[in-house]
Amino acid sequence: MHIYIHSVFQETERNLLRSHLATKYQLSFGNELPEEQRKSTFLQADICFGNVPLNWATETTQLQWLQLHSAGIDPYNKIENHRFPITNLKGFFGQSVAETTLAGILAVYRGIDKLAVWQQEKHWIGTPLRSSLHLLQHAKVLILGAGAIGLSIQKLLTGFDCDTKVFARKTGEHNLSMDNLNEYLPTADILIACLPETPQTLGLINEALLSQLPSHALFVNVGRGSAVDELALIDLLNKRTISGAVLDVTLEEPLPKESPLWEMPNVLLTQHTSGGWAEESRDKVLFFLRNLTRFEHEEPLINVVDWEKGY
Amino acid sequence: MHIYIHSVFQETERNLLRSHLATKYQLSFGNELPEEQRKSTFLQADICFGNVPLNWATETTQLQWLQLHSAGIDPYNKIENHRFPITNLKGFFGQSVAETTLAGILAVYRGIDKLAVWQQEKHWIGTPLRSSLHLLQHAKVLILGAGAIGLSIQKLLTGFDCDTKVFARKTGEHNLSMDNLNEYLPTADILIACLPETPQTLGLINEALLSQLPSHALFVNVGRGSAVDELALIDLLNKRTISGAVLDVTLEEPLPKESPLWEMPNVLLTQHTSGGWAEESRDKVLFFLRNLTRFEHEEPLINVVDWEKGY
Repeated sequence: MHIYIHSVFQETERNLLRSHLATKYQLSFGNELPEEQRKSTFLQADICFGNVPLNWATETTQLQWLQLHSAGIDPYNKIENHRFPITNLKGFFGQSVAETTLAGILAVYRGIDKLAVWQQEKHWIGTPLRSSLHLLQHAKVLILGAGAIGLSIQKLLTGFDCDTKVFARKTGEHNLSMDNLNEYLPTADILIACLPETPQTLGLINEALLSQLPSHALFVNVGRGSAVDELALIDLLNKRTISGAVLDVTLEEPLPKESPLWEMPNVLLTQHTSGGWAEESRDKVLFFLRNLTRFEHEEPLINVVDWEKGY
Repeated sequence: MHIYIHSVFQETERNLLRSHLATKYQLSFGNELPEEQRKSTFLQADICFGNVPLNWATETTQLQWLQLHSAGIDPYNKIENHRFPITNLKGFFGQSVAETTLAGILAVYRGIDKLAVWQQEKHWIGTPLRSSLHLLQHAKVLILGAGAIGLSIQKLLTGFDCDTKVFARKTGEHNLSMDNLNEYLPTADILIACLPETPQTLGLINEALLSQLPSHALFVNVGRGSAVDELALIDLLNKRTISGAVLDVTLEEPLPKESPLWEMPNVLLTQHTSGGWAEESRDKVLFFLRNLTRFEHEEPLINVVDWEKGY
């Protein structure tokens, strides 16, 4: 069998693939071949890892499985009559975003953002800080968005014994409907938004919604900046209608120097870094290898694209 | 039945106690009484919450249960022939220390300490930071100390699918023996020390131990500063023999201005704040109320002091 790796990997990842596959498979790396040989090599391959051009995927008669290296499926949603399964990296980035979410919440609850700044100033505060700290344990957490990010956050909270509710547009197996959100807002400790950008989510988190939260509540946005009425949020944070915010995303990025968010002591900005990590390429390779084992054993592949749902 | 509250609580906590107890019990608060009436009131009480003087506890013939408001049991270890159970707050502070531990690790892994400083400077870095971030998921974590802190940390890691091993002096139900530590060090991602100060732990974490860790490893100390050879740690951090450290405790506190730890970019100092939180008094009251429900139903009380073990 012949595996064609179209994704551009560094030598470390190529060696990782070689060490696992070279004895069992013929293995070709697109970025080790002259450009004019890539397509013909792909057309002889049985398995491909990487987002080849759409017309290559249409032409192949040999391919038995295409593993994309992205969560998005564009332009493959335009492919017709393909006889091989296409899998993607749906959910692959959820863990990273969820970890930054927990890191941000715990930083605020345990004073890490303040301590990091005091360290720069060699300023010892110590014990008096304790009375401004909080425990995440038993917190009532509302998560808006039941995708990979929302469900990963819920999972990370397992050991904290939080009372977690997930909301999406429609009631689902693991979530409530957004229509029921209002009854939970007044007793929430933390509201986390991880919503995609759709016509329904634009400006959804507005003054009317946020001001139903109790004054000790923390707001977190790791979805899209457009889901929030940012001026209303700033106003409510200034008036301490809610106690603080952790924002990975904002309406404009980079955040303009004149935004008041920079200087607000109850805001932590994580600068849209939540979706990445150093070992991302290695982990993509490990995902492919895990899926390949399933392919070899004729078990159902992980993340076969659902064309109706569009992911 | 008469409950005497010896702990000095603010009005919020006293009202919380009143709202739960005033209809069912006679309720007296030591700090609402003139000093000369306190002891005689205690001697009429059936239940007491708070660390009364040892001689009061020796004199009472009425008391059925004493709930201490501390994890430590000194001076009650000197009490003899008491006919009532004594319970303490063993484990009560473990959650708080464990949450700072997770907050510190996630801050380092997700760049929160750096982002907090850049926010002060209105400095947008964004995407380029991503390649220096890491995931806690699947990390190999070694925890030294199988007390309330160590076990709480292990519990908080549940949702992160970490490979967690707990070590204590002797093999136990939930832990390995310290004698086996060496075989796990070379493949560890994170080493967390939450050891008490005993003759055995003084300087236990020395150059020989730390240099067995891989160079990407993170060291965390939320136990006692004396468990670590601090000069060796600083040297190994400078040489990048290990990648970083989160230190809640140091040999000297407040940390002297001249300590190199202040300026090390791979060190996060949490200034011995891990053991406290704003709602600590409320949570002590809630613990007492939970234990009182068990007392009322003649169920085994939580945290009955084990005088042999000494906690």
